[in-house]
Amino acid sequence: MHEETARTVLPPAVFAYYRDGIGDQVSRDEAAAAWRDWRFAPRLFRDVSRVGTEIELFGARLAGPVLAGPTALHTLARPEGEAETARGVEAAGSLLVLSFRSGRPLEEIPLTRPWWYQAYVLRDRSVTERQVRRAVAAGARAIVLTADAPYVPRRGVPEAGPLAPASRPPELEQDPALGPDAISWLAAVSGRPVLVKGVLRPQDAVACVAAGAAGVIVSNHGGRQLDRVVATAHALGPVAEAVGGRVPVLVDGGIRDGADVLTALALGARAVLIGRPLLWALATGGADGVRDCLDFYREDLARTMAQAGLAALADIDHTLVSRVTHRPQIAINRHLFG
Amino acid sequence: MHEETARTVLPPAVFAYYRDGIGDQVSRDEAAAAWRDWRFAPRLFRDVSRVGTEIELFGARLAGPVLAGPTALHTLARPEGEAETARGVEAAGSLLVLSFRSGRPLEEIPLTRPWWYQAYVLRDRSVTERQVRRAVAAGARAIVLTADAPYVPRRGVPEAGPLAPASRPPELEQDPALGPDAISWLAAVSGRPVLVKGVLRPQDAVACVAAGAAGVIVSNHGGRQLDRVVATAHALGPVAEAVGGRVPVLVDGGIRDGADVLTALALGARAVLIGRPLLWALATGGADGVRDCLDFYREDLARTMAQAGLAALADIDHTLVSRVTHRPQIAINRHLFG
Amino acid sequence: MHEETARTVLPPAVFAYYRDGIGDQVSRDEAAAAWRDWRFAPRLFRDVSRVGTEIELFGARLAGPVLAGPTALHTLARPEGEAETARGVEAAGSLLVLSFRSGRPLEEIPLTRPWWYQAYVLRDRSVTERQVRRAVAAGARAIVLTADAPYVPRRGVPEAGPLAPASRPPELEQDPALGPDAISWLAAVSGRPVLVKGVLRPQDAVACVAAGAAGVIVSNHGGRQLDRVVATAHALGPVAEAVGGRVPVLVDGGIRDGADVLTALALGARAVLIGRPLLWALATGGADGVRDCLDFYREDLARTMAQAGLAALADIDHTLVSRVTHRPQIAINRHLFG
Amino acid sequence: MHEETARTVLPPAVFAYYRDGIGDQVSRDEAAAAWRDWRFAPRLFRDVSRVGTEIELFGARLAGPVLAGPTALHTLARPEGEAETARGVEAAGSLLVLSFRSGRPLEEIPLTRPWWYQAYVLRDRSVTERQVRRAVAAGARAIVLTADAPYVPRRGVPEAGPLAPASRPPELEQDPALGPDAISWLAAVSGRPVLVKGVLRPQDAVACVAAGAAGVIVSNHGGRQLDRVVATAHALGPVAEAVGGRVPVLVDGGIRDGADVLTALALGARAVLIGRPLLWALATGGADGVRDCLDFYREDLARTMAQAGLAALADIDHTLVSRVTHRPQIAINRHLFG
Repeated sequence: MHEETARTVLPPAVFAYYRDGIGDQVSRDEAAAAWRDWRFAPRLFRDVSRVGTEIELFGARLAGPVLAGPTALHTLARPEGEAETARGVEAAGSLLVLSFRSGRPLEEIPLTRPWWYQAYVLRDRSVTERQVRRAVAAGARAIVLTADAPYVPRRGVPEAGPLAPASRPPELEQDPALGPDAISWLAAVSGRPVLVKGVLRPQDAVACVAAGAAGVIVSNHGGRQLDRVVATAHALGPVAEAVGGRVPVLVDGGIRDGADVLTALALGARAVLIGRPLLWALATGGADGVRDCLDFYREDLARTMAQAGLAALADIDHTLVSRVTHRPQIAINRHLFG
Repeated sequence: MHEETARTVLPPAVFAYYRDGIGDQVSRDEAAAAWRDWRFAPRLFRDVSRVGTEIELFGARLAGPVLAGPTALHTLARPEGEAETARGVEAAGSLLVLSFRSGRPLEEIPLTRPWWYQAYVLRDRSVTERQVRRAVAAGARAIVLTADAPYVPRRGVPEAGPLAPASRPPELEQDPALGPDAISWLAAVSGRPVLVKGVLRPQDAVACVAAGAAGVIVSNHGGRQLDRVVATAHALGPVAEAVGGRVPVLVDGGIRDGADVLTALALGARAVLIGRPLLWALATGGADGVRDCLDFYREDLARTMAQAGLAALADIDHTLVSRVTHRPQIAINRHLFG
Repeated sequence: MHEETARTVLPPAVFAYYRDGIGDQVSRDEAAAAWRDWRFAPRLFRDVSRVGTEIELFGARLAGPVLAGPTALHTLARPEGEAETARGVEAAGSLLVLSFRSGRPLEEIPLTRPWWYQAYVLRDRSVTERQVRRAVAAGARAIVLTADAPYVPRRGVPEAGPLAPASRPPELEQDPALGPDAISWLAAVSGRPVLVKGVLRPQDAVACVAAGAAGVIVSNHGGRQLDRVVATAHALGPVAEAVGGRVPVLVDGGIRDGADVLTALALGARAVLIGRPLLWALATGGADGVRDCLDFYREDLARTMAQAGLAALADIDHTLVSRVTHRPQIAINRHLFG
Repeated sequence: MHEETARTVLPPAVFAYYRDGIGDQVSRDEAAAAWRDWRFAPRLFRDVSRVGTEIELFGARLAGPVLAGPTALHTLARPEGEAETARGVEAAGSLLVLSFRSGRPLEEIPLTRPWWYQAYVLRDRSVTERQVRRAVAAGARAIVLTADAPYVPRRGVPEAGPLAPASRPPELEQDPALGPDAISWLAAVSGRPVLVKGVLRPQDAVACVAAGAAGVIVSNHGGRQLDRVVATAHALGPVAEAVGGRVPVLVDGGIRDGADVLTALALGARAVLIGRPLLWALATGGADGVRDCLDFYREDLARTMAQAGLAALADIDHTLVSRVTHRPQIAINRHLFG
C-alpha cells in the first residue's frame, strides 16, 4: 500500500495536501468506489494469446492507455520532484502531463518522449502565454486546459520552506471569467491540440468540441475543487456518448487498478490519467516507483483484458460492463454446508 | 460544531426540545442525509468573477436566498431570545420569520428590516387575528401560515420557569379543522401576502395557489409532527414542478451548508429557511452567532456556485443535479498503488 | 419494549418458539423493516377535528382496523392463555382470530363479541369439520383458512409439560394436497364467510376469490414457514390491486405501530392483524396487556392519521405513500453550523 | 459450518487455496449474497404431498438437480481425494464432474454411475485429446469445456509435497487462443455431448449453441479468474432467456442451500453445480461428508419447494422470484409493543 507508506515518509502537511479533497471528502472517497460498482461479463473463445494495450494519442505511441495526470508540486515529495517523475513516466512508456504548478522549471525536467503541458489561464493571460510558449519550446505536444478551477479553494498548502507558493498576487490567480474562447486562444498561442480537463456535462463536452477542443478529459479535479461533484465513473458514459467519437475522451479520478482502467475504456474513454497513486509512488520510490506504478496499471490492464476475452483495446465496448444497482449484502448467517 | 457546543451550554431539556423530532427520528435524521444524495455537474467556461446571491422576495431585498425560519421559544436559549436572533438576522441581511410561539412579545423585538410573521390559526380565531394585526402593525411584510400541525404532539416542552407554556386551554390550541379558506382569511386580516408552510404534495401546492397563497414552503416541520414524512429533498422537485413558477416555492429541513442550499435551488426552490442551526448559533454566540451562521450559508453558497460555474441564481436549474440511486460503498480493500 | 420484558418472564424455549422464524430469519427480520421503507406525504387543510378508525368487517363493528391474528398456544405464556387474550381483545373493541392450535378448548374462552376461527384442513378432514362446527356453535363469525402451511417445519415446540403437542399422528397433520375446493367446503361446513390467509401472489388472490373466498389475508406466516418469502409490505400492493375491491384484503407481518397500519391501509388493506406483539403483551400484562396493546395501535393510528390530514379510513389512498428506493445514509461528517 | 471446521483440519495453505478468489474477493463474496437478494412468492392450493426433485440430464437420472462441480486437487484435502468424492457423490445419487486437474488418475476413481469430465484445451491439444479419450474410456458421459480460463492467475498453489503441480511447461498451459471450434473438436474426439462452462453473456451462450454446445454453464469460476465479474445470480436470467430452452442451462457460484437452488431454477437453470461446500465436506467428512452435503441440498430443495407450493421441477418458473432492489434496513428503534 503505497499510500500508507507515503504517509510515513512524507511530512504530515505534505501528505495531507496531496491526499485531501474538499469539504466532507464525499467526492474524493466516492471516486474509487464508483468504479467498483461496475461488473464485467467476459467474452469467451477469443484469441487472447497476445493482448495489446498500445495506443496512439495525438501522434504519440504509448505502451498503454494510462497517463500521468497533472498534479502540483512534486518537489514536496522528493527534492528532484518532477524530474524523477518524468524519468519514471518515460521508463514506463507513458506520457506525462506536466502541471502548470510544477515544482521545477520545465526546462530542467528531462523529457525525451512526448509529453503534454497543463495550463491554467490566469487573469494576466500573458503569464499563461509565456508559460505555454516555454512548454512548446521544450517539446510539449498538447496543451491540457484545466477548466474546472475558477478559484483555488483555501486548502492548506504546506509551508515547506522555499517550495511553498507565496500568497499569489491577483493577476496570477486563475481567471474566473474564462470563456470557451480560451480553447482557440491556447491553440493559437501553442500551435498544439488543446484538451479541456474538468468536463462533467455532455452539453459542455459538445460545446468544447464546437469551440475547437481536440479532446476532453472527464474529471472532478480529484474532489479538490467542489465537494459532491458527480463521480467520473458516473459522468463518463453520458459525456462519451455525447461526444460520439469526434475527439478522444479521457478520464481521471479514483482509478486504482487495471479493472478500473478497463471499466473506463468500456464506458467510452480512450485513456485514463492517474493522480495521487503516482504521488505516493514518487514519494516512496522516486523514478523507479513511478515507473513501477505505471507498469502495474498497464500489466494489470493486460491481465484483466486477457481474462475478459479482450485482445485489443478496440474489442472493448459498453457491453462489457453492467452497473450494480445495489450492492448485495454479504451474508452473515452461516449454513450447514456454507 | 455548534450543535455539540450548544449541547454543553443549554440545559439538557432545552437542548432536547430543540433537537428532538418525533417517533424514531427517521424524518429528522433523514432530512440532512437526503440533500447529500444529490451530486453536482458543474458548468464550464462561465464568467464567475462575480457571484450574486441577492434575491428579492415580496419586495424585500436579501443578501442571499437563506432565511431564518420560524422556531419557537428562543428565550430558552438566551435571556433576550428573539431580540438577539433578530439583530443577528438583520446584520446578515437576511429575513426573520418570527414564530407565533415567540418567547418575547413581538413589539419588543428590534426589527428594522423586512420580516415575516408565522401564524397558527387557533380554534379561537380572534386570538390569531389579534396576533397577526399586532405583527402587521409592527411591520410584518408577509404571513406564513403553518398548515402541517393540526395537533401539537405531546413532546416535552422544558419546564423553564415562566417561559414554559402552561397547558393550553382548548381555544388556544391549533384548529384541527382548518380549511384552505384560512389563506384568504389571513390575507384579509393582514393585508399581506400569505405563504403556506408544510406543503409536501404537488396537488396541495396547486390547491394552495388556487386558494390565494402567495407562496408555498415545502416543509415537514423538522420531523417534529409526524415521523416517516417524506424528506423535503425528495418532495421539493415534484411540488416545484406542479407550481410551475406561479408563486415562489421555499423549502426547509436539514439544510446544513451552501451545497444543500444550491441543491434546493436546483430542485426549484427560490429560497430556503434554516431552523435548528440558528438555534445552536444563538445559544452559543447570541446575535453574532446568528449573523455568522447566516453569513456562512450565504458565503458557502457563493463559493459553491462559483466552483459550479454559476454566477447568478438565475443560472441554476435542474440539470445541475442528479440523484445517486445507491451510495457506492467505500472500498475497504487496498491496492498496490491505492 | 414488551418483547424484551417478555424475554425475561417467559421460559427461554417458549420465548424462542414465539419469536423465531425459520432459516436465517431473513423474512422475519425484514417484515418490520419493509413497512418502514414507505414515507408519508400528509394532506393539508382537512378537517381532522375528529378522526374515525371504526370499521365494519363481515357485520362486526370494530374500534379500529387492527385485529388479533391467530397465534398458537397462548397457554405457554399464561396459565389462562387464550381466555386472557380474548378478554383483552374484547376490552379493546377488536376481534380475535382464534388459533386452530389454541392452548385451551374454544368453549372455555369467554367470547361475547364477534370473533373468527382459524382453521387448518387436516389430512383427516373430519377433524377439521368437527373443530369448525364447534367454533361456529361457539359463535365464530368467519373462518380463516390458513393456506400457506402445507407442512409444519421442524421448529422446536417447547416441551412445556402437558401443553406441548405430542408428535402428531399423520391424520392430524395439515393436508399437503389441499386444493382451492377447501374454500367452498369450509364455507359449506361452517355456513360462514371464509378468508384465505397466506396469499402473496396476485394470481392466487384472484383464484381464491373465484373459488369463493370472502376475503384474502396477505401473510408470510411470520416468516415461520419459508425463509426469503417476500415481505408483506411489498406483496400487499399488487395483491390489493388484483383483487380490485371485490373482497376485503387484510395483511399481517411486522406491523409494529400506527404508521405501519396506516401504510398497510394506503397500500390497499382493509385491516391488519397483529401477531407477536400481542404475545409479548399477553406474557407481560395478561388481558390488560393485550387490551393496552390493541388500544395503542388504534390510538397511534388515529394520531398518525390526524397529522397526515386523514379524518376517515376512506380518505386513505395510495397517494399517501412513496417508497424510498435507497435509504439515505445518515451524514457522519459535521459542519460548522450542523 | 463445514467451512469453519475445514479451516481447522486443513493445512492453512490448502484451505486458502480452496477458499480464495482473486483480487479483492468481490466476486467470490458477492456470489452467495446475490442469490439472497431474491424473494419467493409461494403458490397456494397445490398438491405438494409428494415433491419430486429427480431430473434426467443427457440420459442420466439424478436424485436432484444438484451436481458436484469440477474442482481441482481433492487429494490436498484427503489422501484418497477424488475417490472419496466419487463415492459420496454416487451415494447421493448425484453426478460428478471430474476435474481435469484431478489429484488422482481418473482410472483409479471408482465411478459406477454416470459422470462427466471437465476439460481444459491445452496449447498442446494432443494432451487434452489423450485425457478426454481416457475419460470416455472410463465412462464419462459428457465433456464440460471450461472456457473462461485463458490463463491461470498466479494464485498460491500450496506446496504440498508431490501433489503440488510443478511450474507447467508452456505446452501444458491452457490455450489462450481457444476458439468456438473447440466445442466441435471435443465432441468429435469424445463422441460425447459438450457443455461450455463459464458463460456470462447471452450472446456467447447463443454462439456456443450455434457452435454445437449441448449445454451451457453459467459460471464465473468461483471468482478465481477475474475479480468484479458479474454474479451468476445476476447473469443467469438473461442467458437462460437467450438460450430459450434449446439446450440445458446450468449454473454454479455461491449456491449454499435449497433456497439458492430453487432461485436458480426459477431463473432458468436446469441444474446447479456445487464447488467449495463439497470441498469442505470432503475435508471434514470424507465420502460420507460429500454424500451428506449433496443430500442436504436435495432435501432442503424439496422442503423449500413444498412450502413454496411446488410439487415438481416443471412447476418452477420466473414468477416465483422477485429481486429486492434495496435491502430494507433492519429497524433498530424499539417500539412500545415491538
